[in-house]
Amino acid sequence: MLIQPGKFLAQINSPEDLKKFPKDQLVQVCEELRQYIIDSVSVYGGHFGASLGVVELTVALHYTLNTPKDQLVWDVGHQAYGHKILTGRREQFHTNRLYKGVSGFPKRSESPYDSFGVGHSSTSISAALGMAMASKYSGDALKQHVAVIGDGAMTGGMAFEAMNHAGVSDTNMIIILNDNCMSIDPNVGALKDYLTDITTSQIYNKVKDELWRILGKFSKFGSSAQEVISKVEGAVKSALLKQSNLFESLNLRYFGPVDGHDVTHLVEVLNDLRKIPGPKILHCVTLKGKGYGLAEKDQTKWHAPGKFDKITGEIAKKVHDTPQPPKYQDVFGHTLVELAEKDEKIMGITPAMPSGSSMNIMMKAMPERAFDVGIAEQHAVTFSAGLATQGMKPFCNIYSTFMQRAYDQVVHDVCLQNLPVVFCLDRAGFAGADGPTHHGAYDLAYFRCIPNLVVSAPMNEEELRNMMYSASKYDGPYSIRYPRGQGVMADWKTPMCEIPTGQGRIVKEGEEVAILTIGHIGNYAVEACEMLEKEGLNPAHFDMRFVKPLDEELLHEIFRKFKKVVTVEDGCLLGGFGSAILEWMMDHNYQSQIKRLGIPDRVVEHGTQLELHKECGFDPRGIAKAVKKMAHLNLA
Amino acid sequence: MLIQPGKFLAQINSPEDLKKFPKDQLVQVCEELRQYIIDSVSVYGGHFGASLGVVELTVALHYTLNTPKDQLVWDVGHQAYGHKILTGRREQFHTNRLYKGVSGFPKRSESPYDSFGVGHSSTSISAALGMAMASKYSGDALKQHVAVIGDGAMTGGMAFEAMNHAGVSDTNMIIILNDNCMSIDPNVGALKDYLTDITTSQIYNKVKDELWRILGKFSKFGSSAQEVISKVEGAVKSALLKQSNLFESLNLRYFGPVDGHDVTHLVEVLNDLRKIPGPKILHCVTLKGKGYGLAEKDQTKWHAPGKFDKITGEIAKKVHDTPQPPKYQDVFGHTLVELAEKDEKIMGITPAMPSGSSMNIMMKAMPERAFDVGIAEQHAVTFSAGLATQGMKPFCNIYSTFMQRAYDQVVHDVCLQNLPVVFCLDRAGFAGADGPTHHGAYDLAYFRCIPNLVVSAPMNEEELRNMMYSASKYDGPYSIRYPRGQGVMADWKTPMCEIPTGQGRIVKEGEEVAILTIGHIGNYAVEACEMLEKEGLNPAHFDMRFVKPLDEELLHEIFRKFKKVVTVEDGCLLGGFGSAILEWMMDHNYQSQIKRLGIPDRVVEHGTQLELHKECGFDPRGIAKAVKKMAHLNLA
Repeated sequence: MLIQPGKFLAQINSPEDLKKFPKDQLVQVCEELRQYIIDSVSVYGGHFGASLGVVELTVALHYTLNTPKDQLVWDVGHQAYGHKILTGRREQFHTNRLYKGVSGFPKRSESPYDSFGVGHSSTSISAALGMAMASKYSGDALKQHVAVIGDGAMTGGMAFEAMNHAGVSDTNMIIILNDNCMSIDPNVGALKDYLTDITTSQIYNKVKDELWRILGKFSKFGSSAQEVISKVEGAVKSALLKQSNLFESLNLRYFGPVDGHDVTHLVEVLNDLRKIPGPKILHCVTLKGKGYGLAEKDQTKWHAPGKFDKITGEIAKKVHDTPQPPKYQDVFGHTLVELAEKDEKIMGITPAMPSGSSMNIMMKAMPERAFDVGIAEQHAVTFSAGLATQGMKPFCNIYSTFMQRAYDQVVHDVCLQNLPVVFCLDRAGFAGADGPTHHGAYDLAYFRCIPNLVVSAPMNEEELRNMMYSASKYDGPYSIRYPRGQGVMADWKTPMCEIPTGQGRIVKEGEEVAILTIGHIGNYAVEACEMLEKEGLNPAHFDMRFVKPLDEELLHEIFRKFKKVVTVEDGCLLGGFGSAILEWMMDHNYQSQIKRLGIPDRVVEHGTQLELHKECGFDPRGIAKAVKKMAHLNLA
Repeated sequence: MLIQPGKFLAQINSPEDLKKFPKDQLVQVCEELRQYIIDSVSVYGGHFGASLGVVELTVALHYTLNTPKDQLVWDVGHQAYGHKILTGRREQFHTNRLYKGVSGFPKRSESPYDSFGVGHSSTSISAALGMAMASKYSGDALKQHVAVIGDGAMTGGMAFEAMNHAGVSDTNMIIILNDNCMSIDPNVGALKDYLTDITTSQIYNKVKDELWRILGKFSKFGSSAQEVISKVEGAVKSALLKQSNLFESLNLRYFGPVDGHDVTHLVEVLNDLRKIPGPKILHCVTLKGKGYGLAEKDQTKWHAPGKFDKITGEIAKKVHDTPQPPKYQDVFGHTLVELAEKDEKIMGITPAMPSGSSMNIMMKAMPERAFDVGIAEQHAVTFSAGLATQGMKPFCNIYSTFMQRAYDQVVHDVCLQNLPVVFCLDRAGFAGADGPTHHGAYDLAYFRCIPNLVVSAPMNEEELRNMMYSASKYDGPYSIRYPRGQGVMADWKTPMCEIPTGQGRIVKEGEEVAILTIGHIGNYAVEACEMLEKEGLNPAHFDMRFVKPLDEELLHEIFRKFKKVVTVEDGCLLGGFGSAILEWMMDHNYQSQIKRLGIPDRVVEHGTQLELHKECGFDPRGIAKAVKKMAHLNLA
């Protein structure tokens, strides 16, 4: 089903086409663009509220800028659907987030209008500043460089680093602060309060009112007093404008706040701003989900609702006859509360992912012990380290891909000091439709090399619970990675027991070939073994559970018996789990043949997890094929 | 030579001892402490200016706080010499930064007064906030939590992330902003300008003066006008105090600026602040190098001058009869300018390490093309990516250990987009006296797993130059790592030529055992070969130059001929260079025996580089021993 655009939108295949419309027709263009997004996402799924919130901004930007020569960077990028639709990708947009289809985020290889690939938060100011500096150096004074960044993304430290540099850069750049008080969940922290404050009760207005009230007393002295009053105001205003504002403190000229849904006014403001040289910030107030009532009301739910009935607002749910396994994230969320009820030292930390990580369960149950620290992975980790120094047991939950943001803090603040922080890495392995920016591909490799850190991954819900329990008893840093999506046990609330650190387990005894797996992907190996059984092959399967420390006893058993080994991981092949097995084998003078399956050394695009596993040869069939090939190998 | 403390300092072996002195004798204590630091550092070396700058602050903090119960976190920590001397480590202080001696940084395992291990910048607020939150939860309302952070460290994004959280935390914590306008080099950016501005010309004073001037006209109306004036002032002041300040914007109560060298006043202020609940910030203005004239005047030179004559100020230099090889960092600095002179697209980026990386050479020669972006590694990388999108060739120089801070940006903003940014990783391998927080131990492992990234390391100056030249011609991300300290070629300014990406070289043909090395450590292997020759052994030696891509042609040659291979790297054994060789061997069905030498999977403490290499078994003798053992191995 192709989505029909409105009559204006149908004529727009590039910003050039958009510019042909007179300004007073832009309201209609916005209406049609908004409707197109609603129509598309309701049928095909994807991110929703963010793009609705910036419809007017998107239209105004492409109307006033000279894209793609002018550089427009969308922070995070899940708000860029309107941008994609206006820049020649409307007719491909039904393939959004599908395997081989349009990416859900701006992507340089997809369009010249996507000036910078995004996905992770808070990068836009740095990127746009780099572009602006290059233009300044090249003498291209007219070129515009715009970063559109949300107030949530503004809490990420690198945005501040970039503003500190931008403020002294003398470059031609506009930061557009898209202030909707939201990350995926409601935005938190002092900055949010501040932005709300300057929006609702600007300091200058307050001071002015107060002066009028006091100086009103002078009215008996006649009109000269009013003159004085206006002079006093002028003095206060000029002093205040110079320094009263956080952004002005950083030497960025601050404009706003303006209504981010008044497209006509936005066009005027943006046209004015183009003429003002130097780095500047425009504060736009918008509403996430604007124009779709339900999305305006429950913004977290409608961040990425999946497919829905656009008339009734009913979100499509798969109907199952039998009880389904839970999502790993929910097993984490419920188990954490269960553990925390018994151990008062346990605390929960999430950097702006309460709903995505299910930390919201603990935040609701024990608000004084669970913290959303904002989009601030670095702080989240070192804050956890601080808690740990005081005898607390912090469980710090960060998506695998976002853990890259806090790598130094894991090394420097937690592991070098051997502090008992538990890292739970959600969305480890392929993220699926979110694509390469979100794949949790590297964590096993980049964690494995850090001293003191336990690196584990559960094969199912029961193991996740047991690992969390074991981690809470362990006196040192401990990481547990698990994938996006469902586990395999409908009946998952098993009693918890401790897994000795580094202990693997035998899933299945067998002959000829040993399959060693880490984490959930082990379930694919189970399927592979079932397939192979039908062909008369009987490989053994070991769920190693730990990449570090390795189960040396079990490995001695395995390598004494098996000359053929296949390792499987939903992680990068270079330096990962299979590599750890190789190192161990060589260090212990075994001479088996090892075939490693996992994520190859290239950028793997988006698609369903299964599609990507298949592409990379470690879906069940791929594993079976590798084992079969290994079994038939004639070792010298 | 043991340093003699002054008569007061001699009595102080703990903060308890310090507290016995009446307040009016603290000036004398400060003088003696300062002198002790000068005496020690002039004889034994170490960091200098930073500790001199916080003598009064250190004394005032330990005088007013109840350490170690109260938690005192020093950001970065190279300013904590006074802290160490006052907390029972005076008599060990002559072992500062020596192998098995006192650490140059606060370290939890060294003293209960070192509440948090530091080394990297900008962690203190997060750590102290974690501690404060734990105390709040435990109901310990009186416990104090203090983070002492420089204005340089304040530019690091995680400090901002932490303040955003602290501002809404309702915890008992004091942030002390140690404002000396310096990192190692002069601090840069908008924040620095802002801090200078509020220090030298406080907004409130400005407004007040202006009001007085204008309202003076009302004097003809008699005293009532003066009353009005005071009311106007009150209104303006209350409005301004609420929001006029960057820190107040983040809901931190701001106090100051105060003179950081007035110990008596500091004691009073800190005593007052203890009684004020909630998160607050005290802005202290200090002078780096305070009390040692030369250090006050040239703060960068005297950041860590090495040993010196404290009377004349002459810094000790080793005298050599023959020309010495240059430091790698200087080869980098000069070569970059040489390249940039011929290629106008080349730009230089450093996060606050102009002198440490020798980027200052380009900053001086081509100020419009070389950027110090402040302590902001994340921004440095994504800013470089932004430059690269516009056709520039950024050379982004970051110490290996600090590159951990920008890991996500390397993955997400540079490598996924395959942008031609050149990363130069200085201080790769053991950092030496700075110890574990500064060892560049992990980069080969954490870089190797990133798609598109070339990972290289030169064995000498000529190779560094050729790699830089090759990188400037390469259309994709390219990393070059090299160690702290000198190279091996006194005559290093060789003509540059391109090294085909991934091409290794034969250093020495040989028999029986092949030694494969990466980077500068290969020179140890040369020494080892010389030792072995005397014992009749003739191993081959290959300088692989690239960890990725590997030289497959050369590897086929090697593995076809050699059944015994030793790999050597100044990097972690888990997942590093040796692991890459193992993976390749297994993937290509060779069956040689490989012994991997490198940094083991534990925290290696401080010492000279050679001491640490020896401890880990890959100094020349260690390599020779491993080769000999391998040569005598009887392979089945």
